[in-house]
Amino acid sequence: MNMSKRWVLQRRPQGNIQPGDLALVEEPVRDLEDGEVLISTVYLSLDPTNRLWMSDQDQYMPPVQIGETMRGGGIGVVQRSRSDLFKQGDVVNPGLTGWSTHTIAQAGGISPVPVIPGVPLTAYMSVLGGTGLTGYFGMMDICRPQPGETVVVSAAAGAVGSIAGQMAKKAGARVIGIAGGKAKCDWLTGELGFDGAVDYKNEDVGAALDRLCPNGIDANFENVGGEIMDAVYSRLNNFARMAVCGLISTYNDEGPVKGPTDFGRVLMHRLLIKGFIVIEYLPRAAEAFAAMTPMVLSGELKWKAHVEDGLENAVDALGRLFSGDHDGKLLVRVSPEP
Amino acid sequence: MNMSKRWVLQRRPQGNIQPGDLALVEEPVRDLEDGEVLISTVYLSLDPTNRLWMSDQDQYMPPVQIGETMRGGGIGVVQRSRSDLFKQGDVVNPGLTGWSTHTIAQAGGISPVPVIPGVPLTAYMSVLGGTGLTGYFGMMDICRPQPGETVVVSAAAGAVGSIAGQMAKKAGARVIGIAGGKAKCDWLTGELGFDGAVDYKNEDVGAALDRLCPNGIDANFENVGGEIMDAVYSRLNNFARMAVCGLISTYNDEGPVKGPTDFGRVLMHRLLIKGFIVIEYLPRAAEAFAAMTPMVLSGELKWKAHVEDGLENAVDALGRLFSGDHDGKLLVRVSPEP
Repeated sequence: MNMSKRWVLQRRPQGNIQPGDLALVEEPVRDLEDGEVLISTVYLSLDPTNRLWMSDQDQYMPPVQIGETMRGGGIGVVQRSRSDLFKQGDVVNPGLTGWSTHTIAQAGGISPVPVIPGVPLTAYMSVLGGTGLTGYFGMMDICRPQPGETVVVSAAAGAVGSIAGQMAKKAGARVIGIAGGKAKCDWLTGELGFDGAVDYKNEDVGAALDRLCPNGIDANFENVGGEIMDAVYSRLNNFARMAVCGLISTYNDEGPVKGPTDFGRVLMHRLLIKGFIVIEYLPRAAEAFAAMTPMVLSGELKWKAHVEDGLENAVDALGRLFSGDHDGKLLVRVSPEP
Repeated sequence: MNMSKRWVLQRRPQGNIQPGDLALVEEPVRDLEDGEVLISTVYLSLDPTNRLWMSDQDQYMPPVQIGETMRGGGIGVVQRSRSDLFKQGDVVNPGLTGWSTHTIAQAGGISPVPVIPGVPLTAYMSVLGGTGLTGYFGMMDICRPQPGETVVVSAAAGAVGSIAGQMAKKAGARVIGIAGGKAKCDWLTGELGFDGAVDYKNEDVGAALDRLCPNGIDANFENVGGEIMDAVYSRLNNFARMAVCGLISTYNDEGPVKGPTDFGRVLMHRLLIKGFIVIEYLPRAAEAFAAMTPMVLSGELKWKAHVEDGLENAVDALGRLFSGDHDGKLLVRVSPEP
């Protein structure tokens, strides 16, 4: 009999996640009923929003309830099937499932992963998955970079930010990234071709932006919030656009999220501020993948995955998103690639 | 020889305008040169933004400089002309000129007022002027009300707010106005047909919004800022739109303008916040006037003017915008209608 493991939310974390906030539960996998498939998780996606789902603050989906399996996205391989739609060995995306080694799902509710030769499976968890869609649509639909404009991306070396920034470059904008540490900044200005990078861990963000954006900032792809966001916001030009993709600096905190210091700038500089979640762009996913897939195949669009092994390490690995101690899209390899 | 009067900014007001902040200067009108016209101001427009122009806070145009004539919009009648473009008696809009009884302008830089029989001259200073354009475009281009949605307008009995709210009604939305005092609220729900009104001077705005907007708020036309804005903002639904037209509650203050308490709502509820100034919509003015002129002629679109007589009363009259002690678009009649 198969045994499965899953992470269950035991209590809502206060600040950083503590041992005991989640528990790893082991139990037998039940038999399948007609129409169901058993999926063995291969990659689990770790995202800043996971932390939000553990809290009960106002958010865009219901939080995970105490006693429930922690929610997550991933891809897996069909291990057993009682449906004609999928057979053993198929690589599938079950949508938002859980932090678990196994998922039993109705075959009608899951999607095949359209594996393209030459594209590694991790790409579908990153540049050709929700991460890529987030970077693509936040930049192209909200920031709308124009040739010659200056665009600033925070958490720019992150999985989403790096895609967003590269799309702005391809649109002809000057792109400045904000990231933590010299290695990440060097990657931005080197391999990714950004026009400048601000190392928020080692320099004053405002002063660096003044130096790198002498004509102000026309668009901001915002992942961080807090003081870094305020430094960008307070340099936004007339008619600038700010895509609010994430506010990771605030997710470990309780209570209301501080906004920009001077809200008057919205009026005086005719700013547009728009929050978004990738879910609302899913109906337009084909448009983004059609644009990005050739760039992925040619190597023109760069992306990286940071893989941690073993579901039991998922909780510790999530902390890396908040410390910045990872290099690329953060994934947990729950079982070997097929 | 003609004598002219004009208000000159003597020093930047601190808080409410004090005697001595502006001075009324009298001087002879100079002779015209070729191509110039002498305009006798008939109506001067008083707007919240006038107070902003007196300050040196970050704003969308350069502030009025100390020693300069106070900036303002108005319409007038040509008194003398040395141009073939205009003749004595023509009603003209010189654009942004000054708080003055007379203006000398290049004929090429002024516009005729397209007076329509049955439309009073004050309409061109209100519903068929910049005020109407502001209400129309902020609502139709940014708030984009849909049938059945709930739209909240602050300073709803004001010149701009009342146009904005009526346009939302015509688009099929439920419209709730926030205004100060029973008379204004009665006007909103009576003559203007709003679905509800909140009297911010006599009731708790949040509690009233909870009662009047049981399904939350889908769009906000914001004129006020501060706590009233926050009460609306904190009830905005997913994908709600907020047009920031004015922040009048903050114009008498120094320093940064406080924004919404919980900026996280922008992300969690995928809000759009957009600041605007009517100037950027001037190229599309014909579109708005084509929609509104028939409604003005039929009486379907209601508007009111509050006229104070005499340029010497302009400074005191401006204070009425901040106390709410006026009924309709605030104008100064500087000289009799032709």
